[in-house]
Amino acid sequence: MQATADTKTHAIDEQSILRTRMKKIKHKIAVISGKGGVGKTVTAVNLAIAFAMQGHENRVGLLDADLHGPCVPKMLGMEGQKLRVGPIGAFPAVGPLGVKVVSMAFVLEGKEVPVIWRGPLKMRAIQQFLSEIVWGELDFLLIDLPPGTGDEPLSVMQLLPEMDGVVIVTIPSEVSQNVVGKAITFSRQLKVPVIGIIENMSGFVCPTCGTETHIFKTGGGEKVSQDYSVPFLGSIPLDPRVCEASDLGHPFIMEHPDSPASKAFMEIVEKLTTYIQEKEKNEK
Amino acid sequence: MQATADTKTHAIDEQSILRTRMKKIKHKIAVISGKGGVGKTVTAVNLAIAFAMQGHENRVGLLDADLHGPCVPKMLGMEGQKLRVGPIGAFPAVGPLGVKVVSMAFVLEGKEVPVIWRGPLKMRAIQQFLSEIVWGELDFLLIDLPPGTGDEPLSVMQLLPEMDGVVIVTIPSEVSQNVVGKAITFSRQLKVPVIGIIENMSGFVCPTCGTETHIFKTGGGEKVSQDYSVPFLGSIPLDPRVCEASDLGHPFIMEHPDSPASKAFMEIVEKLTTYIQEKEKNEK
Repeated sequence: MQATADTKTHAIDEQSILRTRMKKIKHKIAVISGKGGVGKTVTAVNLAIAFAMQGHENRVGLLDADLHGPCVPKMLGMEGQKLRVGPIGAFPAVGPLGVKVVSMAFVLEGKEVPVIWRGPLKMRAIQQFLSEIVWGELDFLLIDLPPGTGDEPLSVMQLLPEMDGVVIVTIPSEVSQNVVGKAITFSRQLKVPVIGIIENMSGFVCPTCGTETHIFKTGGGEKVSQDYSVPFLGSIPLDPRVCEASDLGHPFIMEHPDSPASKAFMEIVEKLTTYIQEKEKNEK
Repeated sequence: MQATADTKTHAIDEQSILRTRMKKIKHKIAVISGKGGVGKTVTAVNLAIAFAMQGHENRVGLLDADLHGPCVPKMLGMEGQKLRVGPIGAFPAVGPLGVKVVSMAFVLEGKEVPVIWRGPLKMRAIQQFLSEIVWGELDFLLIDLPPGTGDEPLSVMQLLPEMDGVVIVTIPSEVSQNVVGKAITFSRQLKVPVIGIIENMSGFVCPTCGTETHIFKTGGGEKVSQDYSVPFLGSIPLDPRVCEASDLGHPFIMEHPDSPASKAFMEIVEKLTTYIQEKEKNEK
């Protein structure tokens, strides 16, 4: 199929719109993982809220780029919302502390509808989420990417070459460490800085007797960060209330601000802020 | 690009080779999940070993169809192995109890090399894993699919229309249940039977005081199986030794055959065997 003059112009327009819209967002950070189910989405959601709590209320965006299993809306209590469409584009749904959220879940008809798409369509969907959404002026856009090194991460990294970097979430097990290595190599090949590694599910304290059990082992995140000379951002302990809060749609960090897990999230956001400040200094 | 007569003939040949090779395998079961990190690979590995322990030694195959994060070889202590190539195709690597394993990890150069491929190439890779591998005569081929409803699951289902069915692995949380719904709808749309649901990480018993904590809640697997009228195959409790054994490359079910988790795996394999026997009776 040959592109007509019309579709070519359209493609150029779309790219320039994407650039214009993305310029209004000061910082973009992708949250990735090698393996699934390491709590990447829980981490992305709580980091977004933590940024909002640390002086960026109404100025944080969260793109749920997991097209097949979008969970962000459920975890933020935003199920059933839709994107509002206006003449200049669609507007993100607004969650707790003014966090602006875009997700495939806001576009699909029902909860159980699967997105059975192959690569090129996924690239298009993500491009539209960046170019046709009126994100507005934001301090931070967090992008929750599906696990692995496939179409969606590749699309986001290619569409946003100016990204500040990626944060990699892992659980402590060795099996996960191998996959983190792949995620680091992936980011480096695409020339996206790896800001650091977060170890999630890092030990469970029995609520009855206080004994700590390392269900998924411990120290794996720190080890892989040393092996690859990448900063270690922190460990988040296993806490059954994280799962409970996520299922109820209450951001854990707002519900239990004094828990060790919430403190870990807050410290990680401080480290991310420092990283970005240093980066800006060096660029001046 | 137009296909030449040569490439067309090649494509037909490949399809007929695939069919011939797949005919020698009596039963094919895919292990899928909506979300990642629910322990799908651990489940697939232990089910394969459990089948081998239940009278199918040397007659079980395991295809690791996760191209981006292949973990099967590590969990079976088969890291560093390569596929042996002969004149009629490549031979699977052989693991504990004669389980025949094929994985991207046996093809890649180093542990940290990521597979940065888009959809069509992934389809090709999986097709080759099915058509160009000399699997030989097997009773069961388990296929460990990457999470979600994207390219790899789609490819496998389209390439193997005769599949016995899929087993869906989930953790109990509600967020996971939503995604399981998508996996069920996905399978039904592709006309592949859903054999049943396995609930993994289903409660943790403190090794010191014996208190059970439902870290990821409980009962979600059973609930979703009722909601969608799909059989419930069983619950596998959280056990830190599962992660330890997987990291060491020792199949958990062989190391700790008397543990509650191992017993759960064995019961699930009995249910799968019954399902297949019933199916065969009905087809006669």
